[in-house]
Amino acid sequence: MAATTDWQQLIADKRSDREFKIHKEWRLPASLLSTISQNSNISVLDVPRKSGILTERELELTEVYDATELVKMMLQSEVTSYELTLAFCKRAAIAQQLVNCLSEIFFDDALNRARECDEFLKLNGKGMGPLHGLPISLKDSFNVKGVHTTIGYVSFLSHPPAAHNSALVEILFQQGAVLYCKTNLPQTMMSADSDNNVFGRTLNPNKLSLTAGGSTGGEAALLKMRGSVLGVATDIAGSIRIPALCNGIIGFKPTAGRIPFAGKTPPGRLGSPSSIVPVIGPEGHSIRDMELFMKTVIDSEPWNFDEGAIAVPWRTIAPIARRLKFAIIEKDPKFPLHPPIQRAMHHAMDALAKAGHHMTVLDDMMIYDSAVLAWKFFLLDPKKTPVGFINASGEPWVPSIETCTFPELADWKPTLDDLFDMNVQRRRIMKRYHDLMVRFEFDAILMPAYQATAVPHDTYGVPIYTVLANLLDYPAACLPFSKANKDQDKNSVMDDVTYVPPYVADAVEGMPCAIQLMGKPMKDEELLQIMEVVQKVLET
Amino acid sequence: MAATTDWQQLIADKRSDREFKIHKEWRLPASLLSTISQNSNISVLDVPRKSGILTERELELTEVYDATELVKMMLQSEVTSYELTLAFCKRAAIAQQLVNCLSEIFFDDALNRARECDEFLKLNGKGMGPLHGLPISLKDSFNVKGVHTTIGYVSFLSHPPAAHNSALVEILFQQGAVLYCKTNLPQTMMSADSDNNVFGRTLNPNKLSLTAGGSTGGEAALLKMRGSVLGVATDIAGSIRIPALCNGIIGFKPTAGRIPFAGKTPPGRLGSPSSIVPVIGPEGHSIRDMELFMKTVIDSEPWNFDEGAIAVPWRTIAPIARRLKFAIIEKDPKFPLHPPIQRAMHHAMDALAKAGHHMTVLDDMMIYDSAVLAWKFFLLDPKKTPVGFINASGEPWVPSIETCTFPELADWKPTLDDLFDMNVQRRRIMKRYHDLMVRFEFDAILMPAYQATAVPHDTYGVPIYTVLANLLDYPAACLPFSKANKDQDKNSVMDDVTYVPPYVADAVEGMPCAIQLMGKPMKDEELLQIMEVVQKVLET
Repeated sequence: MAATTDWQQLIADKRSDREFKIHKEWRLPASLLSTISQNSNISVLDVPRKSGILTERELELTEVYDATELVKMMLQSEVTSYELTLAFCKRAAIAQQLVNCLSEIFFDDALNRARECDEFLKLNGKGMGPLHGLPISLKDSFNVKGVHTTIGYVSFLSHPPAAHNSALVEILFQQGAVLYCKTNLPQTMMSADSDNNVFGRTLNPNKLSLTAGGSTGGEAALLKMRGSVLGVATDIAGSIRIPALCNGIIGFKPTAGRIPFAGKTPPGRLGSPSSIVPVIGPEGHSIRDMELFMKTVIDSEPWNFDEGAIAVPWRTIAPIARRLKFAIIEKDPKFPLHPPIQRAMHHAMDALAKAGHHMTVLDDMMIYDSAVLAWKFFLLDPKKTPVGFINASGEPWVPSIETCTFPELADWKPTLDDLFDMNVQRRRIMKRYHDLMVRFEFDAILMPAYQATAVPHDTYGVPIYTVLANLLDYPAACLPFSKANKDQDKNSVMDDVTYVPPYVADAVEGMPCAIQLMGKPMKDEELLQIMEVVQKVLET
Repeated sequence: MAATTDWQQLIADKRSDREFKIHKEWRLPASLLSTISQNSNISVLDVPRKSGILTERELELTEVYDATELVKMMLQSEVTSYELTLAFCKRAAIAQQLVNCLSEIFFDDALNRARECDEFLKLNGKGMGPLHGLPISLKDSFNVKGVHTTIGYVSFLSHPPAAHNSALVEILFQQGAVLYCKTNLPQTMMSADSDNNVFGRTLNPNKLSLTAGGSTGGEAALLKMRGSVLGVATDIAGSIRIPALCNGIIGFKPTAGRIPFAGKTPPGRLGSPSSIVPVIGPEGHSIRDMELFMKTVIDSEPWNFDEGAIAVPWRTIAPIARRLKFAIIEKDPKFPLHPPIQRAMHHAMDALAKAGHHMTVLDDMMIYDSAVLAWKFFLLDPKKTPVGFINASGEPWVPSIETCTFPELADWKPTLDDLFDMNVQRRRIMKRYHDLMVRFEFDAILMPAYQATAVPHDTYGVPIYTVLANLLDYPAACLPFSKANKDQDKNSVMDDVTYVPPYVADAVEGMPCAIQLMGKPMKDEELLQIMEVVQKVLET
């Protein structure tokens, strides 16, 4: 009991600290806040516009432009970094009150930094770098000097503030970025519900009763609220793409090693021999912003900041004008597509075919088996380090954790022998995909990012459609496309399948759908151009 | 006993097959062959010239040019591939009789292939590729369709000939190469003596009583005999560089994944979770030939042949004109440098400093600890698969195997927990090297490749000076420089150290010495240019 009281007091203090960092003038009225709960099925996307907290100009700055445009505007002195940062701090504060998307808030540091950027531009007649003056938000697991990193573990509340920046944070600062907040994530970072005892649960701004996804869910919810224009996420099983799908933004997971991973706070044990490694990538509003992030970081030679980053330059390639060859993975029979997603997939396939691109449906692509294998790689630690991090404080497990595993692994105890066999099995799957990609000269694979839209809290389950790209180490992106519409979707309902999780048309009405594109390893540059082609086709 | 008789008969048959593949006219006289033994301290380097088996023209073709020049000569019709291949077949046959460097011989296939190359050139007015008509030799572990791959295991004699080419072999053929023989290696490939029960022991052509090194020892001995102009080797602890040092040729170990490894016959278990992976690289006579190999293979997009090859283009960079910054690792105190190597190192350091390059000596660089850690990665397989391959035939262990391990690992039984800790330890070493390379902007590390020249058979021991580059995954090369000279070396003899293995001046008199250069990961291109700079300085 003592331990319980302790942890509850600790989180109460932490949350009160966080609340204190939101200026009084930026607080929403109690009458509005009383309508906010994880059971409410309202959208809060229009609240910032209606709140009266942002000026017309601030609404325009946060809603109309992408990051690429905003940097250009700053360099042309059409807007200052201070003005822009203030607008995003305000809007992030509003988002926080509505969907609980922030973990750490450091608006004051950001505003000081923004002033520095403005001074720099004035003095030097040029910006600090390709991210000059740009407010960027990031997942809580990144270390920012002087800011806490708890990643939602109560036991990490006793850690001192970060003494060093993560390698990537160092690079972002060097290239001119303004960091103003970190965002919420799931306990252990291994669930698709961004819920933990320290910060609580992030809600989906499109519909509060649905999950914001995870593990980079706070980030995606903040982006959807336009409380950020560019966010930094991580992905080992879908953690960039799942929240992108759930909220309706773009998420890009690069090939492993291209963005430096060093100096983050890990949710588990260091030194894992897993063949699947976590990667960092951007979430945001435009494909060219994804490229802005990738190119800027890689042009900074991240291999000089991180011994694990791969020293390969960014290749700027021309837009693609030719017809593309797409492999299609429609579904895994164990996880049939919910009608809105099925409709989005078919619509995308039809539109691309009509635009002259080649579409080839692949069968038996081992989606489910790949996911089970991937999960084994995630469960290798005999010491079960995350369990120790939880138990150290006495905090309980959050509900979604138990939904994120496979029944066949319940009693599995990994051994070194297993690991040899797992690597052989992984290599066989890699070879199958590789040989098809080469033989048929596919440019990319089009597939769902998940069998459904965002689903009710704690029901997401295992992300079999995203973890495949992690197992293969293929770059992969989630592109928003179409919306759930029960009238149009009813023709896609299949009576002979069991939807997991259940499909309830009314519960997800209007929710964003998405498609997923997987490119070829180290061809991140090409995948971004392919995304541009696809987006253009789908927009028309 | 039955098993013993069996395996002895099997190898007798195999060796007789091999002998049969050497034309009668290419056989050396019995009187000469009677002087050949592993106890003889003679050099056989001049035998091809004296044997009368090669014409003057063939001597010139095999002795005077490097691979780059020979391809140019073929494209200009100054020599045919047939003429060149015949010359190298003859000379390889002579080498085989003297130092036992070949495992598989397929001269007839090679001569047919050479005729095809000549026809192609005549018909098309251009070559097949950058390796047009060039005879290339390779280590036995590569699979060449229709040729056996035993890698020296008696139990593998029952395997059928290879049904498929290794990924690299496929590329070499596509680019115009002529393959004519495979070369000898150690039992299990984990020793520095290229000795196994199937093919016997390869001797060092500079001095038969000394080791040819391993594991790519047959290749390096063949190259030193100029029975090959360009050879393909592999390296997980020094197997490219050790034989390069022992014989006095150039060996280049690239960053892992740049040359495709798929489709080779492994000496152990597939699926190892080791963080150290084997790599393929060239051995030969000129630095530009190393680049010819690297560029040709990588320009062929090896990632389309092997799901494990990294999709990163070759960068052709300009020769380096500026002053370079070298970090120096002089020695590990446990393995003091033999006088000839100490002299070579100091001579190289002095010459480079005199030429204006910056030299910084690094201390406590964890050479020995890194090697012990690396060995743990090599010993991860709980099934001890190589032991099974040996026991399957009843063949005995060759003597050198027991010298190639660390006493502290005698009773070590690896666990998954160990592997996590090993990865953390490896990362710590990587970070130390990385941070020094970045902070001081070093271009390369200059260090010994081994504490000695080639040593008497079965005394080489553990290769602590080469395995470091494998642990770090830094590209590394061995450049021949200086020769043992007891008069000059006597000033370098230290009375207060124990040389391991012992230093016997007379036994190694005249033997080639070498230096090792380690570059930065994925900067293989830069390392080749740095080698050019160093070679130019050392030649003057």
